[in-house]
Amino acid sequence: MNLILLFKEDYVDGGRCVCLRDRRHQYVRTIHRAGAGDSLCVGEYGGRIGTGKITSIDDRQLEMDVQLDREPPPALALNLILALPRPVMCNRILATASMMGVKQIYLIHSKRVEKSFWKSPVLKDEHIRHQLLLGLEQSKDTIEPKVHKCPLFKPFVEDELTRIARGTLGLVAHPGGAEVCPRDVQKPVTLAIGPEGGFIPYEIEMLQKAGLVPVRVSDRILRVEVAVPVLLSRLF
Amino acid sequence: MNLILLFKEDYVDGGRCVCLRDRRHQYVRTIHRAGAGDSLCVGEYGGRIGTGKITSIDDRQLEMDVQLDREPPPALALNLILALPRPVMCNRILATASMMGVKQIYLIHSKRVEKSFWKSPVLKDEHIRHQLLLGLEQSKDTIEPKVHKCPLFKPFVEDELTRIARGTLGLVAHPGGAEVCPRDVQKPVTLAIGPEGGFIPYEIEMLQKAGLVPVRVSDRILRVEVAVPVLLSRLF
Repeated sequence: MNLILLFKEDYVDGGRCVCLRDRRHQYVRTIHRAGAGDSLCVGEYGGRIGTGKITSIDDRQLEMDVQLDREPPPALALNLILALPRPVMCNRILATASMMGVKQIYLIHSKRVEKSFWKSPVLKDEHIRHQLLLGLEQSKDTIEPKVHKCPLFKPFVEDELTRIARGTLGLVAHPGGAEVCPRDVQKPVTLAIGPEGGFIPYEIEMLQKAGLVPVRVSDRILRVEVAVPVLLSRLF
Repeated sequence: MNLILLFKEDYVDGGRCVCLRDRRHQYVRTIHRAGAGDSLCVGEYGGRIGTGKITSIDDRQLEMDVQLDREPPPALALNLILALPRPVMCNRILATASMMGVKQIYLIHSKRVEKSFWKSPVLKDEHIRHQLLLGLEQSKDTIEPKVHKCPLFKPFVEDELTRIARGTLGLVAHPGGAEVCPRDVQKPVTLAIGPEGGFIPYEIEMLQKAGLVPVRVSDRILRVEVAVPVLLSRLF
């Protein structure tokens, strides 16, 4: 927790004083081991970041005087389209995407995604949100990514993807791609990443029709949780 | 398991026939759901890769006729120096490095590494090896990385690092680095990555004396498990 996210309900006097009693309070006490007078990096959910100076802390609560003086780090100009990862990986991938500054995430179906994954508790809104906030706390950001759940492949690709990808560089990561994934593109990107085993040929064809170019990034088959940072680091 | 690693003791007739009875057999039966006549990607530990054609499979064992006809994917020209990650992350980071083709990994001490981490069972040789092999199976490689455990920072940096880094581009990932991390360097690299919270100034100074240049890669503070793929993808 490199940044403590603050919400409207944390403010106690309508001004600059916040009071925390939940896991953030526990974290500051037990991990930061901070005391009165210490300063912490804080950020207002959806807003600016700055410093919280601890005015009091005990085993019940933490009070801080907050000053917000700068913008959060810039977002990635990216629409990330992910074939729904298996539940055990989904958490980590969402936290990673959030940490890296992705703000639009589309979880889509694909032939090689097991239908049962869509019923997993990790896809509950509050569960997804927790992972996204962990990513923000890690990378000192305040802007929560928007996660769109799209459990039908064809309607998504035919009706929504063209609109989403308009004006962006459209790419789909594909081991058989004829082109090599470009580097440091300096423009907005729409990037699709398939499931374990990859998109099937029909899906690649549909994604191409919607304007996405298949690109390969490595001779090696990477797990999705590794492919996400590898591709984002290469593109931006 | 995109590739099944084969070892000398798997061969049954001194020729091309292998017999498997362990987790590889189980995996082929339950996940690949392969039967007699099907072909699987295989690789000889430390050697070439190719195809294994299943001659028989039942609930006891799997027999294959093996033909090895090509080299494993090229290795990364990289010495990866990692401040020992906390045990829960160490497994995943070693598997990721192995998956990406790193062949030399130095786990080193640093002020911000808890001394107790060095006593963790995840550092036992057989445990490390398991993670490395998982990475190879994922990326269809056969060459096991070498992991060096260096629990004393100063002797490592003063006595070994200069030799290791000789003839390579020496870098240390450091949020305060004056230079931006280069891209697609096309030469051998020695890269050091610090612990959560980073190397302390004294350590950065020592690493610089050994020839490593501090470079920054992002405005964001990334978890080490994400920083590793991000940095490798940028450099290679």
